[in-house]
Amino acid sequence: MSRLKLGMVGGGQGAFIGGVHRIAARIDDRWELVAGAFSSDPDRSRASAAEMNVAPDRAYGSFAEMAEAEAARPDGIDAVAIVTPNHMHGPPAVAFLKAGIHVICDKPLAATLDQAQEIAEAVAASGRQFILTHNYTGYPLIRQARQMVAAGELGELRVVQVEYPQDWLAEETSNKQADWRTDPARSGAGGCVGDIGTHAYNLASFVTGLRADRLAADLDAFVPGRPVDDNVHVMLRFAGGVKGMLWASQVAVGNENALRLRVYGTKGGLEWAQENPNVLRFTRFGEPSQILTRGGAGSTPAGARVTRIPPGHPEGYLEGFATIYAEAAALVAHARDGTPLPEGLHAPGIEDGLDGMRFIAACIASSQADGAWTPLN
Amino acid sequence: MSRLKLGMVGGGQGAFIGGVHRIAARIDDRWELVAGAFSSDPDRSRASAAEMNVAPDRAYGSFAEMAEAEAARPDGIDAVAIVTPNHMHGPPAVAFLKAGIHVICDKPLAATLDQAQEIAEAVAASGRQFILTHNYTGYPLIRQARQMVAAGELGELRVVQVEYPQDWLAEETSNKQADWRTDPARSGAGGCVGDIGTHAYNLASFVTGLRADRLAADLDAFVPGRPVDDNVHVMLRFAGGVKGMLWASQVAVGNENALRLRVYGTKGGLEWAQENPNVLRFTRFGEPSQILTRGGAGSTPAGARVTRIPPGHPEGYLEGFATIYAEAAALVAHARDGTPLPEGLHAPGIEDGLDGMRFIAACIASSQADGAWTPLN
Amino acid sequence: MSRLKLGMVGGGQGAFIGGVHRIAARIDDRWELVAGAFSSDPDRSRASAAEMNVAPDRAYGSFAEMAEAEAARPDGIDAVAIVTPNHMHGPPAVAFLKAGIHVICDKPLAATLDQAQEIAEAVAASGRQFILTHNYTGYPLIRQARQMVAAGELGELRVVQVEYPQDWLAEETSNKQADWRTDPARSGAGGCVGDIGTHAYNLASFVTGLRADRLAADLDAFVPGRPVDDNVHVMLRFAGGVKGMLWASQVAVGNENALRLRVYGTKGGLEWAQENPNVLRFTRFGEPSQILTRGGAGSTPAGARVTRIPPGHPEGYLEGFATIYAEAAALVAHARDGTPLPEGLHAPGIEDGLDGMRFIAACIASSQADGAWTPLN
Amino acid sequence: MSRLKLGMVGGGQGAFIGGVHRIAARIDDRWELVAGAFSSDPDRSRASAAEMNVAPDRAYGSFAEMAEAEAARPDGIDAVAIVTPNHMHGPPAVAFLKAGIHVICDKPLAATLDQAQEIAEAVAASGRQFILTHNYTGYPLIRQARQMVAAGELGELRVVQVEYPQDWLAEETSNKQADWRTDPARSGAGGCVGDIGTHAYNLASFVTGLRADRLAADLDAFVPGRPVDDNVHVMLRFAGGVKGMLWASQVAVGNENALRLRVYGTKGGLEWAQENPNVLRFTRFGEPSQILTRGGAGSTPAGARVTRIPPGHPEGYLEGFATIYAEAAALVAHARDGTPLPEGLHAPGIEDGLDGMRFIAACIASSQADGAWTPLN
Repeated sequence: MSRLKLGMVGGGQGAFIGGVHRIAARIDDRWELVAGAFSSDPDRSRASAAEMNVAPDRAYGSFAEMAEAEAARPDGIDAVAIVTPNHMHGPPAVAFLKAGIHVICDKPLAATLDQAQEIAEAVAASGRQFILTHNYTGYPLIRQARQMVAAGELGELRVVQVEYPQDWLAEETSNKQADWRTDPARSGAGGCVGDIGTHAYNLASFVTGLRADRLAADLDAFVPGRPVDDNVHVMLRFAGGVKGMLWASQVAVGNENALRLRVYGTKGGLEWAQENPNVLRFTRFGEPSQILTRGGAGSTPAGARVTRIPPGHPEGYLEGFATIYAEAAALVAHARDGTPLPEGLHAPGIEDGLDGMRFIAACIASSQADGAWTPLN
Repeated sequence: MSRLKLGMVGGGQGAFIGGVHRIAARIDDRWELVAGAFSSDPDRSRASAAEMNVAPDRAYGSFAEMAEAEAARPDGIDAVAIVTPNHMHGPPAVAFLKAGIHVICDKPLAATLDQAQEIAEAVAASGRQFILTHNYTGYPLIRQARQMVAAGELGELRVVQVEYPQDWLAEETSNKQADWRTDPARSGAGGCVGDIGTHAYNLASFVTGLRADRLAADLDAFVPGRPVDDNVHVMLRFAGGVKGMLWASQVAVGNENALRLRVYGTKGGLEWAQENPNVLRFTRFGEPSQILTRGGAGSTPAGARVTRIPPGHPEGYLEGFATIYAEAAALVAHARDGTPLPEGLHAPGIEDGLDGMRFIAACIASSQADGAWTPLN
Repeated sequence: MSRLKLGMVGGGQGAFIGGVHRIAARIDDRWELVAGAFSSDPDRSRASAAEMNVAPDRAYGSFAEMAEAEAARPDGIDAVAIVTPNHMHGPPAVAFLKAGIHVICDKPLAATLDQAQEIAEAVAASGRQFILTHNYTGYPLIRQARQMVAAGELGELRVVQVEYPQDWLAEETSNKQADWRTDPARSGAGGCVGDIGTHAYNLASFVTGLRADRLAADLDAFVPGRPVDDNVHVMLRFAGGVKGMLWASQVAVGNENALRLRVYGTKGGLEWAQENPNVLRFTRFGEPSQILTRGGAGSTPAGARVTRIPPGHPEGYLEGFATIYAEAAALVAHARDGTPLPEGLHAPGIEDGLDGMRFIAACIASSQADGAWTPLN
Repeated sequence: MSRLKLGMVGGGQGAFIGGVHRIAARIDDRWELVAGAFSSDPDRSRASAAEMNVAPDRAYGSFAEMAEAEAARPDGIDAVAIVTPNHMHGPPAVAFLKAGIHVICDKPLAATLDQAQEIAEAVAASGRQFILTHNYTGYPLIRQARQMVAAGELGELRVVQVEYPQDWLAEETSNKQADWRTDPARSGAGGCVGDIGTHAYNLASFVTGLRADRLAADLDAFVPGRPVDDNVHVMLRFAGGVKGMLWASQVAVGNENALRLRVYGTKGGLEWAQENPNVLRFTRFGEPSQILTRGGAGSTPAGARVTRIPPGHPEGYLEGFATIYAEAAALVAHARDGTPLPEGLHAPGIEDGLDGMRFIAACIASSQADGAWTPLN
């Protein structure tokens, strides 16, 4: 299988998530990075390109230029990865979609619901693929958990507990990563809720197959002067009477990326934690808890499909992220030339993006209304 | 030190918590069980007495008879332990207090706020000691956690996460323990919220030194036909802007008694779990997390004071419970003859009981008002 | 059931293990401490007695005096607990056995094989019960593990890994506990191997039902000037071709009492750790690992028989120790008046003691012979 | 930085470790796979090449042909990765070295000491780089552990405990991976000891900076009819009086790749486990244990240098393996054009390979001599 051609917007020197996307794109060898507008500063863009073995003539000074030029090349990129701050997802996404180029976009979808809506319209109009990198859905045991829930192994669901505590913003902090995430103009009105609350919500939604109808939220900015929230408390009401709680925090000292999901139904319960992702605790009511390992005894096809190495050899964050890129490759190849889609393929897309934006908006609205139950719509 | 004389109301054959109280009373050798009204059935009470080495003439057919008789004996009991279902705490408590006998009472304080208020008035009128067995406050590392918070090791508090999931009522169940706990006439209007929600709230309150001002709650009875709640979601607002979440559940499959507390402040965070209680995770912001063990390096006087054996030899639930009995003994001995109180003594009392009742009432009221913020008063 | 009468030799003020024995004896309410020679210093013995509610006339200045006096009393003790340093187990044990009094003795059995042999002969001659407090065999999940092995759940055994690391003697240390344990005259020729190596060996032997035929040992005294070993490496050959390794250490920095056992057979494997003893990991070959909890799903009768409280409420070291005392009570009551023995009773006894002494002797002999395979006999 | 050109011997369809090498080579983007003799069956080799985007004219039918052709091309490979069974490491290694091509070789070095010696001579004669993929040395916290030991944070070392239990060969098994590993003609005389015992020994040696002087081993083949060992017990004596134990097993039911290292010195101890490799437990004597995380507080430069993503986002087996490839790239680039070597570079090489072979040979010899202490030489 020849490699697909990837371009990138953002992700130049000093960025964090761009490097993650590039490694993820390489791991399964379905993509080759050949073009980029790595920075809004053209010199910086070119310097970054050189470090990444991207040819100088495909190091662009702006995404607009890149979209036009790549669309015109016979060997132009198949897809573009957008790894800029939230407020800069929309313009390039729309430009590349209009140019007929598939889009892989970092989350959350945008800084505002309006921007998000614009992207969604561009996706619909273009008929191109749009993949949102809710990368935690790429962990094999998360795929397995989803399949177990769907297969009824937990019975009818009752309770969902999800949390994502961090501590890196526990004090006033200034660096490239912190600055845009705490600037409403760039991150959107949600701080913590947008950056990691959406991950937590998406993960719960992905595994359970449920979306929340309503929520009641209490958001705080504990660090003095911070213009966006850094701690998020939410009660959730899902379809069918399922209840949930969500906690996200950037000020929970002692936590790095402690994303954790627990789901309980009439017949069983399961528990998973991102920091040791190769283990899933599963209990059938009245039986001993089981420790399911990635690829180990009790694995389901959905998990096995996206695992690369034997159980006991840990896969991590980059492999989960790589699975999103592998799924994206399958979608793009299918769109290009009808390559059959693999059974069980899943990639988060525009609907997940919109749902995330509705989640952010509802959290903020509820919190401003003193925690009133607020619909997601 | 000679032993104090203990009587018991409830706790006869087939009971659970009575046996726990008796072991707890023996561990530190400050109490001797010498009298009891172990059952409302006099034959059963006498049969239970015989099994417990209680003299036949002190096996009573009713608590009223017992209070009168013991108050009249020169060698009468110093204190009575009340281990009946919630709705039967009040009458014996009031009777023994009126008879001048100190009371050790299981939690929650009562089935209703009115009953609770009656007990509180009797305590005030009697001048006697009243100890409520919120036993989790007896764990050494919980004492240590409280001392660390009070000493400012966490800085100013921001976030409190507490949870108490179980799964034993995940299906419709009938046995002595389940029946009264799911019967509003005996347990009170709160099911899960009263039985274990109060423990979670009390623990958070004990460690942080804070009481909640207001809460927003979402209570469910997931098992069809169950007349009381079996899952409890609460958002908390403590004094001083501290925010919290509390989750209690009796339907979370795979959980036994997974009480867990996490507290975060400006300078540090800590985490403790009841099922492995000899370990406390503590992090100073920017430093590696520390694993503090009961009695190990980094112990504080408050924890060391109530530990019996060296680190690495686990103490458990019964030892934590025993600490409440040891504290009760110190209080009763002090009341009796002025024996000096040990420094650092703490025993949950009538105020904790009232606070727990307010917590239950507020949870139910808030849930009935669709999660409206409801004050605890 | 009326309480049995217990005396104690050793365990006065400043001692550690005596206090543990007393709590253990109280927990299940089968014993009452009524007499003691708590110290070789009569004043100290009497002062200790007063603290323990022992009548002054039964606070003895020597064990010899005590054995004689108690044997003569109509209400004399049923059994004596010997909690002195190793070299002082033999003389009182022999004296009480000769006086017709049952003996509960701390481990290891003695400081030397000769002393041990003398005790064994006295036991045989007396017909009295002799219980050795290898307390770790009292943990419910250890009982369960033994029953699972015996029932063939692991298939034919192959490999046994046992270890007991501590760090309290990592530096030169002087205190009451350290001094006698590092003095060959009091502890015997084995230091670490006698104090905790015997526990590890006994635990492996108890769970597997096997005794080692031969061993190869490498003993070290890492702390300069220490006259006994503080680190013990052993390879074991059990009956039937089962192989094992044992590691015990008092210089393994970061370990408190990290006793841990792993057993593997053709069909399954299990793993248990003393510091979190309410959990047993069990795996059937080809299936997910199970987390068995004390009293939880998958419990066996042998474990359930010695558990006091529901799963999820941790029992600890003192409860395991108490089980030895409960078993001792059943044995003594049976000997006294034919009270039927409970099914499933197990108490470590003189054979375990002799086997432990053989283990120590073989380790020392092997190490002196540069690790030559040495039989236990 | 332009990519280096990589060839591969072995690793065709159906192989396991070849795929791991290829992912590892891609992760840090320093290598491009351009040639291969992926199978001794030329058709299979070509079919594999096509799947890997290797040009048909560089898909070779034999390693000999490949070495010659690539050495002759102006754009020939910079290095070759040898990922065949053990007995087939030597011939290609020698051929490529003679052709002036650097070699990256899977472990153990060879099936026999003679083969190993031949490789070593070829390395010396060629002046080319030889990197042995002891991939566990690539884990960031293993680098950190080594640096901490070297910096004296543990004081003088005393005890090293290392183990590597698996269970995949607990029964008689037949598949591509199992067959050659249990065939002495292909794996060498050591089974478990060669396949994973060497990893355990290498890891202990890497972190401590020590090599064993002598060892006493007890090897077993528990599965009937198995011609090589499947369980390995070893006592180790390192330079300077440091003592160790090593256990490796392929029949320890319930273990996947449970490689675990513990090191103790006069001042501190540390513990690491491969299955959750982003955590290192470290204890200074008399202080609470610390949980050091990859890239988290307390990181050292040696660990930080080889980490790609922030703490709390787990890196795994493939990233550790990739670090070996990144180090190899630095060595090869340095050899090619003098590119400066990064500070702190470490890659396992021919000496580690020889040491591993000596370890295997000594284990087998000792076991055959009934566990006699046997030097490694």
